[in-house]
Amino acid sequence: MGWGDLGVFGEPSKETPNLDQMASEGMLFLDFYTANPLCSPSRAALLTGRLPVRNGFYTTNAHARNAYTPQDIVGGIPDSELLLPELLKKAGYTNKIIGKWHLGHRPQFHPMKHGFDEWFGSPNCHFGPFDNRVLPNIPVYRDWEMIGRYYEDFKIDLKTGEANLTQIYLQEALDFISKQQASQQPFFLYWAIDATHAPVYASKRFLGTSQRGLYGDAVREIDDSIGKILKHLQKLGISENTFVFFTSDNGAALISAPKQGGSNGRFLCGKQTTFEGGMREPAIAWWPGHIPAGGVSHQLGNVMDLFTTSLSLAGLQPPSDRQIDGIDLLPAILQGKLIDRPIFYYRGNEMMAVRVGLYKAHYWTWSNSWEEYSKGIDFCPGQNVSGVTTHTQEEHTSLPLLFHLGRDPGEKYPLSFASDEYQRAMEQISVVVRQHKATVVPGEPQLNVCDKAVM
Amino acid sequence: MGWGDLGVFGEPSKETPNLDQMASEGMLFLDFYTANPLCSPSRAALLTGRLPVRNGFYTTNAHARNAYTPQDIVGGIPDSELLLPELLKKAGYTNKIIGKWHLGHRPQFHPMKHGFDEWFGSPNCHFGPFDNRVLPNIPVYRDWEMIGRYYEDFKIDLKTGEANLTQIYLQEALDFISKQQASQQPFFLYWAIDATHAPVYASKRFLGTSQRGLYGDAVREIDDSIGKILKHLQKLGISENTFVFFTSDNGAALISAPKQGGSNGRFLCGKQTTFEGGMREPAIAWWPGHIPAGGVSHQLGNVMDLFTTSLSLAGLQPPSDRQIDGIDLLPAILQGKLIDRPIFYYRGNEMMAVRVGLYKAHYWTWSNSWEEYSKGIDFCPGQNVSGVTTHTQEEHTSLPLLFHLGRDPGEKYPLSFASDEYQRAMEQISVVVRQHKATVVPGEPQLNVCDKAVM
Repeated sequence: MGWGDLGVFGEPSKETPNLDQMASEGMLFLDFYTANPLCSPSRAALLTGRLPVRNGFYTTNAHARNAYTPQDIVGGIPDSELLLPELLKKAGYTNKIIGKWHLGHRPQFHPMKHGFDEWFGSPNCHFGPFDNRVLPNIPVYRDWEMIGRYYEDFKIDLKTGEANLTQIYLQEALDFISKQQASQQPFFLYWAIDATHAPVYASKRFLGTSQRGLYGDAVREIDDSIGKILKHLQKLGISENTFVFFTSDNGAALISAPKQGGSNGRFLCGKQTTFEGGMREPAIAWWPGHIPAGGVSHQLGNVMDLFTTSLSLAGLQPPSDRQIDGIDLLPAILQGKLIDRPIFYYRGNEMMAVRVGLYKAHYWTWSNSWEEYSKGIDFCPGQNVSGVTTHTQEEHTSLPLLFHLGRDPGEKYPLSFASDEYQRAMEQISVVVRQHKATVVPGEPQLNVCDKAVM
Repeated sequence: MGWGDLGVFGEPSKETPNLDQMASEGMLFLDFYTANPLCSPSRAALLTGRLPVRNGFYTTNAHARNAYTPQDIVGGIPDSELLLPELLKKAGYTNKIIGKWHLGHRPQFHPMKHGFDEWFGSPNCHFGPFDNRVLPNIPVYRDWEMIGRYYEDFKIDLKTGEANLTQIYLQEALDFISKQQASQQPFFLYWAIDATHAPVYASKRFLGTSQRGLYGDAVREIDDSIGKILKHLQKLGISENTFVFFTSDNGAALISAPKQGGSNGRFLCGKQTTFEGGMREPAIAWWPGHIPAGGVSHQLGNVMDLFTTSLSLAGLQPPSDRQIDGIDLLPAILQGKLIDRPIFYYRGNEMMAVRVGLYKAHYWTWSNSWEEYSKGIDFCPGQNVSGVTTHTQEEHTSLPLLFHLGRDPGEKYPLSFASDEYQRAMEQISVVVRQHKATVVPGEPQLNVCDKAVM
C-alpha cells in the first residue's frame, strides 16, 4: 500500500473512512518511512529494529539489487538477531503473527522459533497458482503445522478477484484479541495481511464497491477490517490499554498499476526504488486516552522505530550489544516532540540516499535497468525526471543530487550545486553520512542463494 | 492554487489547519472543477454560470488557445451577460468584490457596472513592476476610484517576497461583513484575492513559516485569513445564515513550481491544460447548522454551479432566456444527492475533453507547443505520458483517448480501444457530447484584440 492510498492522505476517491477516523482519533505521521523499498528486508527491519544491511536481509549478487525471500531462498532471519516478540516475551507478552512472515521458509526460520507464540499465515505472499508438480503453491500454517496451500485450500479466484483471505485474517485477529483479553494477558499482534499485494483480491461483499477497481476493493476491505479491530478493542474495554500502529512495508507497486497497484500520491516512483514513492508510507498511531486526537506529526519515523517504541511501551530496553536503528517514538507521539534523526534509503547494501530534515541527498540514482524497462517493467510510469529516474546506476557520491522535500516533495527539481543552500545542506548531511557509515558492520548476506531443494 | 495544496487533500506538509477544519465542519468536494484552465475565462464562467465559449471569454486567434485579460485587452465581459451580483440585487443583496476582477479593464467593464456595489481590488493580477513610462503598473480601485497602483502604492517586495496585500484584503472582508451584519442586510462577498499567483508574496508574519517555501507561506496566510473570516461570521452570530464556498480558478501553475507554484496532488499537469491537474480544484462548502459536518461529496461540480446555487439560496431563478451551464448544488450539499451531469474541458472554443461519471474522454490532447517547451516552459514537469501530454495538438475526435479516473486519476493509462469497457463508455459519452454541441452558440470572442491605447 502506498502513502497516497488513504483518504486522509489525499486519495481522490476517499474510500477509507475507518483509517481516516483512526487518524482523527490518533496521530497521523506524514514523514514516516520503511527501511527498504521491498517487503522482506522491510519486515526484517521492523522486527529487529535494524537496517537490513545489518540483519543480513540483502544480497551481494549485484550492486544495489533488491532481494526478498522467494520460495526457494536458502536464507532467512539469523538466530543471532533478536526479534521484537522474543524480547516482549520477557515482559510476559503473548505474541501472534497473522499473515505474511517473509523472513525465510526453512524450519529454522519459523516465526515460532523467533519469539512468536502463535502463527496463522504463510512464509510468503499468495503468489501462484503454480503447477504443483514442479513448484508447490505457497503453504499456510497454523502455529507449527502446515494446514494447506493458497489456491488449493485457501481459494483465490484470479478471474473474479474473489478471496476470503482478509476476512479469515480479520477473524483470527478478533479471536486472538478476545482470548487475550479474557485471560488478562498482554499481547503483541503483528497483523501482516497479504492484501493489497498483487494478485489483488477482496471478499464478495467488497468486490466492485470501489471507484478504484479491484485494488480499491482490497483497500476498502482492509479499511473495514481495521475499523472492526479498533471497535473490538473498544468493546472489550482495552482500547486505552492497547497501542495500535498502521503502516505499510513499501510504497505502492506502480508496476502493477492501475489495476493491481496503488498510489504514492505525488511522490516519485514506487516500490523497488529509493525515491519517496518507494519508501514513504501511510502511518497512523492510535491509543485513545493517551495520544491527543487529531494529532499530526512531522517526526521522521521508520518502521524500525516500532521495535524500539514497542519495547519502551512494555517497559523494556532495546539490546545494548548491537546497533539499533529504531528510535523510541513515544516523545513524538505523546508529547509532540521532534527528534532529530536521519532516514537512510538502501537498495541491497548500498546507501542510495539520505534524508536530513527536509533535505534529501541522492548518492546513487536508479529506477531499473534499460533491459527490464524495455520489457515494459516500469517503476515510475508517466514520471521521467531527467537525470533522476535513471535507468543506469548513476553514482553521485562526490556531488549528491539534493532535493528540498518541503518545496519539492516529488523530487523533480534538484538544487543547483552552486547554490549556498546546496553547500550549507550538504555540509550537514556529509557529517551524518560519515557517522552512519562508520557504524555499519554488514551482516552475513542472507538472500544470495536460491535452491529448489529447500521448498 | 491546486487540488493538492490543502492538507485535507494530502499536501505532505499539512499546513492548512483552518481549511482542513472548514472541511471537517462542512462538506469536501473531491470532484469539483473550474470551467477553464485559466483565470479570466474561469471567473467569467463563475459569475455568469456559463461556459466561456458562450459568454465570449475566449479567443479565435489560434486553435485551442488559452486567453485572458492582459492590461491591453480591448474586450471584457459583455453587457449582454447577466452576472450573479446583478441578479442577487433583485433579492436585496449588497455585493462586494475584493481582489481580482479579471473581466476587462475598460470603463464599461467595471465591476460596479455589472452588479457589484463595492469594489476593493484590481482589474488584473499584481504583475509588474513595469517601467511606468511605457507600461503602467496595474491599478487598484476602491469602488469607482483608482486609488493607486501595485508596487507603487501597494508594496510588493520581489526580493523578500513581503507584501501586505492578503492582510489588506482580509481586513476589507471583515469590515464589509461587520457593516452588513450591523445593517441587517444580506450580502454577497466575492473574496477573489491575488495570492497564490506568481509573483508569490506573504506578509511578514508568514514569511519563512512554511516547509514549502514562499509559496507555502502564501498558502498559510490564505488559510489563516479564511479561518479569521469564518470565526468572524461565528462571532457576529451569522454563520448559520451565511453560505461559504472555497475554491480556486485553475489548477496550480506548474510552470512556476517549485518556488512559485503549487501542487495538483497526483493529477496530471497543471494550469493551462485540460488534464485533471489543470482543472480539478480544491472545494469546500461551509454552512454550520445546514451542511452536515464532515461530509464528503463525489458530486461532479463546477465553479459555474456557484452561480446557480447562490441564486437558489437567495430564492431566485436563473435566467431562462439563455443556456446556463451551472447547476444547483443544494441537493448534493444538503441531502447528499448525486446529480448526473458531465464536465466539459475547454481551451479557447475547443472542447478538448469531457468527463461523464468516472470516465474522461480526450477529443484533443495538448500540453504546449514544442517551441514553448524548448524554451523551458513546461506545464507538466517530470510528467510525460506518451501520446497524452503531447506537444502537438493531437486530434482524437473519431477515437477519443479514454481514462477511468477512479482507477487512474493521473491519466496515465488510456483504455484499450478494443475493450468492451471502451465501447460501452464511449457510447454513453458520445450522446452527451452530441447533446452538448447542439446547445453551443458561441458568444462574440472578447479576447482577440490587444491595443496599448486601452491602458
